[in-house]
Amino acid sequence: MNLFTPYEEAFNAYMESYLPSSGQFAETTRYALFSGGKRLRPWSLFAVLESYDIPYLQGIPFSAALEFVHTYSLIHDDLPCMDNDTLRRGRPTLHKQFDEATALMTGNLLLSLAFEMIQDSKEAKFLTKVLSEACGAEGLLGGQLKDLYKETCSARLLFSQKTGALFQAALWGGSILATTNQAQRDIWRECGLALGILYQVADDFQDGDSSFSLEELTHLKEESVHQIQNASQTLLHFPDSLTLFVNRLKQQCGVLHDPLTSLS
Amino acid sequence: MNLFTPYEEAFNAYMESYLPSSGQFAETTRYALFSGGKRLRPWSLFAVLESYDIPYLQGIPFSAALEFVHTYSLIHDDLPCMDNDTLRRGRPTLHKQFDEATALMTGNLLLSLAFEMIQDSKEAKFLTKVLSEACGAEGLLGGQLKDLYKETCSARLLFSQKTGALFQAALWGGSILATTNQAQRDIWRECGLALGILYQVADDFQDGDSSFSLEELTHLKEESVHQIQNASQTLLHFPDSLTLFVNRLKQQCGVLHDPLTSLS
Repeated sequence: MNLFTPYEEAFNAYMESYLPSSGQFAETTRYALFSGGKRLRPWSLFAVLESYDIPYLQGIPFSAALEFVHTYSLIHDDLPCMDNDTLRRGRPTLHKQFDEATALMTGNLLLSLAFEMIQDSKEAKFLTKVLSEACGAEGLLGGQLKDLYKETCSARLLFSQKTGALFQAALWGGSILATTNQAQRDIWRECGLALGILYQVADDFQDGDSSFSLEELTHLKEESVHQIQNASQTLLHFPDSLTLFVNRLKQQCGVLHDPLTSLS
Repeated sequence: MNLFTPYEEAFNAYMESYLPSSGQFAETTRYALFSGGKRLRPWSLFAVLESYDIPYLQGIPFSAALEFVHTYSLIHDDLPCMDNDTLRRGRPTLHKQFDEATALMTGNLLLSLAFEMIQDSKEAKFLTKVLSEACGAEGLLGGQLKDLYKETCSARLLFSQKTGALFQAALWGGSILATTNQAQRDIWRECGLALGILYQVADDFQDGDSSFSLEELTHLKEESVHQIQNASQTLLHFPDSLTLFVNRLKQQCGVLHDPLTSLS
């Protein structure tokens, strides 16, 4: 069973409620959003909420906003002036299926809608800051810029911006909705960043064409796992599901060491 | 004297406070934002505030957000996959001065920052809804799509989306900050839309290459002027400066009728 299945119906219905009901954008936004994405950012936010016995429904607006932002960043990443990709999740990328201008504007629409839907959350003001920081020059966009121009920087910095920022927003956002304890929020924030970095390390291991050395990636993997383990021991509530997810990522990082390791 | 001069220093300082201090985006955001734009949307918001004796400083976060969104839309409009323009305000467009990917991401950054800075306003939640609506499929992006694909629609619909939406947000936003009187806010909202439409009509008259008939443009001009005049008579506070601005736009619409009319 897909990890996200228990949440899927309510989550999709909420996303649908923000999409245009007719016109070109009605088609393009759905093409981009309902394409078999794993919904890992929303899922990890829900995991935080459930560890505090908070109904996951309270996290839907912010987690949907994260998914909209993630999707916008993929659409723009795929454009000819960026990575110029023709396939995404086994289907033509949005600009191939439609055209460049439509893909550009569809991404922009998803970004605008993300900020709109956060206003349905309690703590809307704080969460808006969290999301815009994640989107900005020290977050997603900083990472995209570094990636595209092969700027010389550490894997840690690149991964923390291009992937860590949104995972950080997910876990941090979950903790903002779940607890008023500042110390715990801070730990979730750091833990989210480490989780995103680990996810990207695992991705680089899987792709096998990382521009970073095996040594640097392995060091970063160990550092991130260590940070997440520390968090799991310090926090009163750390969901088993996140521990399982981290273990799976660790396994993926092992692939280069032992090509025979099978991954489920 | 430029209409915006009294506000310029404080306004620019506020915008600066949100821009990256180093790196590529530090340069590109300033190139785009400080390029001689007339700041008409911020200016018209300040005019509303001052008519209620509210210090214009209270409107700076939202008006700067409007300017960021306006600038993002111009950057993306100029891209090769959109209008493919090489000059903007007498200088190379952003993607010509830098490159396409950088221009794309700079636009995205400005859009994200716009939503971030609104959170400095009172009424942040409401204003976020106002801005995202202005940006969306029934606002700016809807207008850009119609414009690009020459969709058959009325001048009224096209102009209300591509230009009216942000002027509407400016005057409506000003009224949200200035008064709790719902009836007055509604009038400002309608008046802002009419002002934006009139601005675009004047622009089409000036360019002389409108895809709409002189008859349709003239009708729309008269309708918009009529709506603004009604608003100015109904509202207790209607700034003289806006009346002067409307008169100037009306004059610009006269050019096609009488090419000898001189415009200051």
